Amino acid sequence: MQAININQKFSLFNEHWSPKIIGQLNGQDVKLAKLKGEFIWHDHKNEDELFYIIKGSLQIEFRDKMITLNEGEMLIIPKKVAHKPIAKDEVWVLLFEPTNTKHTGDVKHELTKENFEKI
Amino acid sequence: MQAININQKFSLFNEHWSPKIIGQLNGQDVKLAKLKGEFIWHDHKNEDELFYIIKGSLQIEFRDKMITLNEGEMLIIPKKVAHKPIAKDEVWVLLFEPTNTKHTGDVKHELTKENFEKI
Repeated sequence: MQAININQKFSLFNEHWSPKIIGQLNGQDVKLAKLKGEFIWHDHKNEDELFYIIKGSLQIEFRDKMITLNEGEMLIIPKKVAHKPIAKDEVWVLLFEPTNTKHTGDVKHELTKENFEKI
Repeated sequence: MQAININQKFSLFNEHWSPKIIGQLNGQDVKLAKLKGEFIWHDHKNEDELFYIIKGSLQIEFRDKMITLNEGEMLIIPKKVAHKPIAKDEVWVLLFEPTNTKHTGDVKHELTKENFEKI
């Protein structure tokens, strides 16, 4: 049991769209990711997903609207809701979701990560 | 589904040791709390608990050590581990824990909250 410093963890990687696990509790993962560019449309069949913006500004496109999240803002996306994150400039995000949540749901894409490194 | 601004949520209350629910997902609560002074010793029998420091510096006393958490740092306290938070000056904290986690475990104290307001 030790303090987890978010900025120190972000200094350990530079890849985009490759979430890293920084903690686990109650069957849930706490992940960090750096995002840049457009991700792909996907949903998670059984998992709600939380995005919390640490740095930058993230747009999330839904079928019926766009939501912009700025630093210090979070959004909970319910299961089954299709979404597409878009980061015009680099965004640092904290994710909270169940362990084993698939990166891009049932969609397979070159951006899809099958495993998440623990840092 | 809408953006949740953390600082705006913190502006809605001033009580200490009275967590407010700002979101729920996958059977878990996202809570905010303002802390000042010494809390009481307690543990949670079945729930791990995450503290993430938004503002200030929090000491958490354990039976065998003290951990200090500064802004931007988090700590995951495993179930059954007794802890006592101490905030010399006011601290703003974000908590992740299962819905229905009891505030002070099986301990009853005048500081114990039975219900958590949603804001």
